[in-house]
Amino acid sequence: MSTKPSKTLETFPNPNPERDYTIHMEIPEFTCLCPKTGQPDFATFLIEYVPDELCVELKALKLYMWSFREEGAFHEAVTNRILGDLVAATQPRFMRLTGKFNVRGGIYTTVVAEHRKPGWQPPLKVELP
Amino acid sequence: MSTKPSKTLETFPNPNPERDYTIHMEIPEFTCLCPKTGQPDFATFLIEYVPDELCVELKALKLYMWSFREEGAFHEAVTNRILGDLVAATQPRFMRLTGKFNVRGGIYTTVVAEHRKPGWQPPLKVELP
Amino acid sequence: MSTKPSKTLETFPNPNPERDYTIHMEIPEFTCLCPKTGQPDFATFLIEYVPDELCVELKALKLYMWSFREEGAFHEAVTNRILGDLVAATQPRFMRLTGKFNVRGGIYTTVVAEHRKPGWQPPLKVELP
Amino acid sequence: MSTKPSKTLETFPNPNPERDYTIHMEIPEFTCLCPKTGQPDFATFLIEYVPDELCVELKALKLYMWSFREEGAFHEAVTNRILGDLVAATQPRFMRLTGKFNVRGGIYTTVVAEHRKPGWQPPLKVELP
Amino acid sequence: MSTKPSKTLETFPNPNPERDYTIHMEIPEFTCLCPKTGQPDFATFLIEYVPDELCVELKALKLYMWSFREEGAFHEAVTNRILGDLVAATQPRFMRLTGKFNVRGGIYTTVVAEHRKPGWQPPLKVELP
Amino acid sequence: MSTKPSKTLETFPNPNPERDYTIHMEIPEFTCLCPKTGQPDFATFLIEYVPDELCVELKALKLYMWSFREEGAFHEAVTNRILGDLVAATQPRFMRLTGKFNVRGGIYTTVVAEHRKPGWQPPLKVELP
Amino acid sequence: MSTKPSKTLETFPNPNPERDYTIHMEIPEFTCLCPKTGQPDFATFLIEYVPDELCVELKALKLYMWSFREEGAFHEAVTNRILGDLVAATQPRFMRLTGKFNVRGGIYTTVVAEHRKPGWQPPLKVELP
Amino acid sequence: MSTKPSKTLETFPNPNPERDYTIHMEIPEFTCLCPKTGQPDFATFLIEYVPDELCVELKALKLYMWSFREEGAFHEAVTNRILGDLVAATQPRFMRLTGKFNVRGGIYTTVVAEHRKPGWQPPLKVELP
Amino acid sequence: MSTKPSKTLETFPNPNPERDYTIHMEIPEFTCLCPKTGQPDFATFLIEYVPDELCVELKALKLYMWSFREEGAFHEAVTNRILGDLVAATQPRFMRLTGKFNVRGGIYTTVVAEHRKPGWQPPLKVELP
Amino acid sequence: MSTKPSKTLETFPNPNPERDYTIHMEIPEFTCLCPKTGQPDFATFLIEYVPDELCVELKALKLYMWSFREEGAFHEAVTNRILGDLVAATQPRFMRLTGKFNVRGGIYTTVVAEHRKPGWQPPLKVELP
Ligand SMILES: [Ca+2]
Ligand SMILES: [Ca+2]
Ligand SMILES: [Ca+2]
Ligand SMILES: [Ca+2]
Ligand SMILES: [Ca+2]
Ligand SMILES: [Ca+2]
Ligand SMILES: [Ca+2]
Ligand SMILES: [Ca+2]
Ligand SMILES: [Ca+2]
Ligand SMILES: [Ca+2]
Ligand SMILES: [Ca+2]
Ligand SMILES: [Ca+2]
Ligand SMILES: [Ca+2]
Ligand SMILES: [Ca+2]
Ligand SMILES: [Ca+2]
Ligand SMILES: [Ca+2]
Repeated sequence: MSTKPSKTLETFPNPNPERDYTIHMEIPEFTCLCPKTGQPDFATFLIEYVPDELCVELKALKLYMWSFREEGAFHEAVTNRILGDLVAATQPRFMRLTGKFNVRGGIYTTVVAEHRKPGWQPPLKVELP
Repeated sequence: MSTKPSKTLETFPNPNPERDYTIHMEIPEFTCLCPKTGQPDFATFLIEYVPDELCVELKALKLYMWSFREEGAFHEAVTNRILGDLVAATQPRFMRLTGKFNVRGGIYTTVVAEHRKPGWQPPLKVELP
Repeated sequence: MSTKPSKTLETFPNPNPERDYTIHMEIPEFTCLCPKTGQPDFATFLIEYVPDELCVELKALKLYMWSFREEGAFHEAVTNRILGDLVAATQPRFMRLTGKFNVRGGIYTTVVAEHRKPGWQPPLKVELP
Repeated sequence: MSTKPSKTLETFPNPNPERDYTIHMEIPEFTCLCPKTGQPDFATFLIEYVPDELCVELKALKLYMWSFREEGAFHEAVTNRILGDLVAATQPRFMRLTGKFNVRGGIYTTVVAEHRKPGWQPPLKVELP
Repeated sequence: MSTKPSKTLETFPNPNPERDYTIHMEIPEFTCLCPKTGQPDFATFLIEYVPDELCVELKALKLYMWSFREEGAFHEAVTNRILGDLVAATQPRFMRLTGKFNVRGGIYTTVVAEHRKPGWQPPLKVELP
Repeated sequence: MSTKPSKTLETFPNPNPERDYTIHMEIPEFTCLCPKTGQPDFATFLIEYVPDELCVELKALKLYMWSFREEGAFHEAVTNRILGDLVAATQPRFMRLTGKFNVRGGIYTTVVAEHRKPGWQPPLKVELP
Repeated sequence: MSTKPSKTLETFPNPNPERDYTIHMEIPEFTCLCPKTGQPDFATFLIEYVPDELCVELKALKLYMWSFREEGAFHEAVTNRILGDLVAATQPRFMRLTGKFNVRGGIYTTVVAEHRKPGWQPPLKVELP
Repeated sequence: MSTKPSKTLETFPNPNPERDYTIHMEIPEFTCLCPKTGQPDFATFLIEYVPDELCVELKALKLYMWSFREEGAFHEAVTNRILGDLVAATQPRFMRLTGKFNVRGGIYTTVVAEHRKPGWQPPLKVELP
Repeated sequence: MSTKPSKTLETFPNPNPERDYTIHMEIPEFTCLCPKTGQPDFATFLIEYVPDELCVELKALKLYMWSFREEGAFHEAVTNRILGDLVAATQPRFMRLTGKFNVRGGIYTTVVAEHRKPGWQPPLKVELP
Repeated sequence: MSTKPSKTLETFPNPNPERDYTIHMEIPEFTCLCPKTGQPDFATFLIEYVPDELCVELKALKLYMWSFREEGAFHEAVTNRILGDLVAATQPRFMRLTGKFNVRGGIYTTVVAEHRKPGWQPPLKVELP
């Protein structure tokens, strides 16, 4: 695998597709450019998903995130776009993407978007005491 | 855009209106005046909303918050009023506004108000383990 | 308004009775006397309520809390009593009172009591991701 | 009241049996002996309960916890046993007991057990924003 | 009992099978090898389960976790595999396994998998205020 | 010993006067009255001292702190006064008293005063890495 | 005393001038205007001083801090200016002023300035273990 | 080695006596009895020492701490006594012992005592930025 | 002033050169490229300095930090280089630069370098209790 | 460079030998075996050093730490040994090594050792307020 920024999101087969389980991935090193000012923006992204047939490959995910380094991107749009790319690549049963952006103008912005596969129902929630 | 305090809340089109997603904005730099004593009050505001057609513009939001600097405002009323202004400007599917006011008389006050668009139902809540 | 301890809980009209919203008040400076030993007890109280027609006035609340300074009071009874007084004064749609008492005999005690107005239903809970 | 370890759990009448409310008690000073090795074990216990007619007396609870100091006790069994004793003494509407044991063999163990009075239903849960 | 790494998971009879209760076990000292690079990986595992007839023995659990020290293991697969082994050994009413892996490539990965015994329903969830 | 507030500070003989060692005592439950407004003030006090022939008795210290409950006291003066009383009672080699007062008028005040016995030199400070 | 912003810093006589002791005051509610943009700036100030003949009065200090609300002020200059005003008013043996300014342009700035009375030497520093 | 409480403190030869270095040991599981009331006391002990020819053996230290479980002990005296026993057993170049006792009567007590070998000087303190 | 990355560090005259005082600046948004792999590195920088005749301008500092975004830079060298540039631009009495780099290969690296103007002595350090 | 465990500590030339500066490296993923029981031990190591002509290479350091995975090692001896190896490889002006070992037998052990090059004096310590 190359080590250049890339919009390609490689995957590998889910080793346990018989079960609904959750994968969390926290990526504290996202940076893009503000489309208005051209100045750098910084964010931490959090992916939480229930894989179906495919899981996203960790190193490819890193290169994908890197690919925004030179691009202009609004907070709301880029969070929805990354969710769209991840869903297209992995077709998960469920995925939630959270983008926590660094303070700008004294205001902290976080954007959270979700995708649920049509027809998929989450398993019974068991809350242990 | 000017950089003066203003009650005008500029907006921009929601880039992903096809999806219910959440925008959080934390504004730690709110100050107004106590209507009883005339002395400054301070608060941190937190906006959480599901946009419909419009999103609130970050810089305009900052100028809006600034516009209370010389105004007298009770904790409960000003929180409800700001929620009303934000709802009028953005017509969101859902919005929650939290105002955490600094201690006065040894007592800490926080006010939380919500608006839900008539007929809008929140999407299925998926709680991942 | 006087500045003496008082069991009177002054109120003011809820500025937004058309909406169910929440007021949190944290009061870290409560002290009374232990009815068994006569020694001082200390607690932090937390009020959370949905006002109906009336809100409790902050300074009056402070004087009310002060009024227990010379009184003997058991943890469970005094928490229920204060809830009763606050409910009688403000007739809220809902109120929860939490009393966190300082350690005694190596044990930390917290008491939580609630009042719900007959017939009042909480609004649809919207849990944003 | 004596100040010796005792399995007797004294109670007092619940001052507000007309209401479902919660009492939390945190007891950080529990020690017993490991039945396998005879060496001391340490734990913090947390009681949360909705009293019915009786509340557990704080000092008696302390002496009761002390009574395990010389006894061998497995984590799972002793947590269930203490819950049983507390339920027998106070006949609560609901009680949850949590035992957080200190690390042994590099592993941290916590045991949580609950008792619900037959027929008792918890009151409507009101989650304030 | 030997003190060598072992895939055998010894158990002991649940002392209180008449009740649904929860056992939490936190194991901060897991290490295996990355199947791609051969380099060590590190994780903290958290087990939460409602035992049926059997509980997992603490020392055997430690030796079991140790048994992965020389093995190659992917994050997703090893979490599901350990859950499978624990379920096979203890046949619990419910079990959740969480594996929090140390940062790799600037990304933090956590995997959470659950098993619910067919037909078992969790007891009424009582959420105390 | 009585259990009434008292300005008497009972002592006991230092069991190890041959050595300079330190006793820290933290007292989070101090309350007095503001001499200007008559309203309650609250503080946490911290005593750190090197005893000479006498140590202050813990229960007497508690009763002494209680004795300020009905008295008017300015922050600076009461901290210096308590230090003076403790020094008079125990004649320590060194004593530092810190009074951390709760917020008033949006300002947090802490007062720290020290007493060193004439001629006493602190032992060589050993700072371990 | 009036309750209007004022550059006058009222004082009161140090009740214990015979001793070098320390007064800490933390003021989290400072706001002024940026001289370049006219927009509000926010800071927390911390005063630490050894009083000589005079102490600064708490309420006057609050009004003094308020007096910057409508003024333009650079971070470095305003911190030095406030130190100068406090020194002029109280003539302390020693004073340190710390201004912690809210993030601007993604950068957090803190300014710390000190004044030592000519000829004053700090007392022997006793560091207790 | 037996696994019974014992006042014997076994040692092993310092593997690097040519160098002044520091060993920290934190023991959170100390309990003894209050000589006045007979009730259990609890503390966390911290040992910091520069070994000379001997180091204290970890398991023996645990059994030594256990040996106080049935003994009456005042805070000040027991801290000095344990330091004395450790010094007698290991003859260290320097040792500091800190006993942090659980809250009693609303007051938290910590005792810190040190021993320095006659003639031993700590090495040059290097404080890196 | 332009808003493009720039190695030029603009300054402004120190408003209070008559006094040694400290300016702290924390810059959490530094990113450069690893010279070995070409992949992005991330760091937080902290500047602490005593200005002489000149202070570094905040916005210019931001643009300067931005200028490393496309450059390859080793941790140790880039920290020393930035210190050199800042010293060349401002000729401070003293400056300390700390670069805290994100984890790489499971290892966290922080580099700290200082510059002291020849002949400058820090003022008497006053440590208040 | 290979990616196998290795006792070889590769170095690179210090890019700024003209200055005394500090490099901190935190390595949370150390594991070896207990020489008594053969069971795994875990620790976090912290290196702080002032390089002279050579710096330790990050990836080589990782492989070096990995090389202890199959070796028996006592806490005190292995910390001193690693310091010795690092000093032999880099000949630093000063180095401090801290090994924080996971709890064993309820006791937490940390070992700290230092090396100072003969004749090297640390630069003047400047403590900024
Ligand atoms: Ca945020
Ligand atoms: Ca605030
Ligand atoms: Ca609050
Ligand atoms: Ca409290
Ligand atoms: Ca509690
Ligand atoms: Ca636990
Ligand atoms: Ca870990
Ligand atoms: Ca994680
Ligand atoms: Ca306080
Ligand atoms: Ca303070
Ligand atoms: Ca800062
Ligand atoms: Ca303890
Ligand atoms: Ca303490
Ligand atoms: Ca960072
Ligand atoms: Ca670090
Ligand atoms: Ca430790």
